Amino acid sequence: MIQKYPSLLLENAVSEFSKLPGIGRKTALRLVLHLLRQDKESVLAFSNALSILRQEVKYCRECHNICDDEVCGICSDVTRDKQIICVVENVKEVLAIENTSQFRGVYHVLGGIISPMDGIAPSDLEIDSLVERVKSGTVQEVILALSTTMEGDTTNFYIYRKLAPTGVKISVISRGVSVGDELEYADEITLGRSILNRVAFDDTFKI
Amino acid sequence: MIQKYPSLLLENAVSEFSKLPGIGRKTALRLVLHLLRQDKESVLAFSNALSILRQEVKYCRECHNICDDEVCGICSDVTRDKQIICVVENVKEVLAIENTSQFRGVYHVLGGIISPMDGIAPSDLEIDSLVERVKSGTVQEVILALSTTMEGDTTNFYIYRKLAPTGVKISVISRGVSVGDELEYADEITLGRSILNRVAFDDTFKI
Repeated sequence: MIQKYPSLLLENAVSEFSKLPGIGRKTALRLVLHLLRQDKESVLAFSNALSILRQEVKYCRECHNICDDEVCGICSDVTRDKQIICVVENVKEVLAIENTSQFRGVYHVLGGIISPMDGIAPSDLEIDSLVERVKSGTVQEVILALSTTMEGDTTNFYIYRKLAPTGVKISVISRGVSVGDELEYADEITLGRSILNRVAFDDTFKI
Repeated sequence: MIQKYPSLLLENAVSEFSKLPGIGRKTALRLVLHLLRQDKESVLAFSNALSILRQEVKYCRECHNICDDEVCGICSDVTRDKQIICVVENVKEVLAIENTSQFRGVYHVLGGIISPMDGIAPSDLEIDSLVERVKSGTVQEVILALSTTMEGDTTNFYIYRKLAPTGVKISVISRGVSVGDELEYADEITLGRSILNRVAFDDTFKI
């Protein structure tokens, strides 16, 4: 049931909030009432942070990650290995991989994955720019680090087909039982994959 | 762990979002990335709706509910009974009671409840204005409709003490087993209260 709010301003703010994913009208009203209890400056700061972000955000011209300059901190870092490109869906995955401190190469942010259901075609993603980047020279290896979903697999395969002619080495992050997980609770597909993709015992100490 | 975002604008937007109640940094990032995928106009509309709301919101000079004019739609409705005032915490409760279509009086919105833990004193709430309203004349009955929490009970009692000298009739919404609930699952306090506050069988058909 749509509630009749006593104020059009309130109504507007609640509908805008409830457009966000995972936020219904009840939560939206709770958030808006919270904002109303804050002082004007904080609410203006919130509102400005959003509009400025959308208007002034830049994307790195190398890896297409969100950044404040022409080139992001990772791409402009001379200690990073430009020969290895890790292909990810979004800035969230860049953050997650950076947190592991296990990767010293550079990234390529697709900006999404191929998903006909959501109307996302290969042309909406930074796939052509990836191919250009690989063709332009120094890249030795492309690591595909997308989600293990049907969309992720489709995107992996599409990129593989596009990159195969260049002769670059293409790898995919390994799938297997999570560290700390008990075998009996792992799902069959993951467990099966972890057996197929088993590694030499010595290799487990390399990282 | 605080993540290092590749962009200060992104960092700002995420911290602003995560100040909202119930929204952590992961959810904040998800919401911000969602906004980045929307066109500039929608994000501006969102941002404007919030800043305009905070700057231009008005409170009804009678009942202190959120509204766009000097007096809210309920207080300016001549068919509403100005002799009965229902005291509620917030606009959310006004909406909830209005949805029942069982109340034809007017409201008084306190703007919160007395909560020493959260630093909310009686003077932060619209209690004095309620007393003024009652003293000024035509009010016959004040219905207290606050939450059944310790803070709600404290506020009820505080208002009761303030209003008692005026001789106005003061009532509290009834507590009891929810309609549709099975007795065996009702908690003891609610069930006990529903027995103490039992009503004549005939009265149940009045509403």
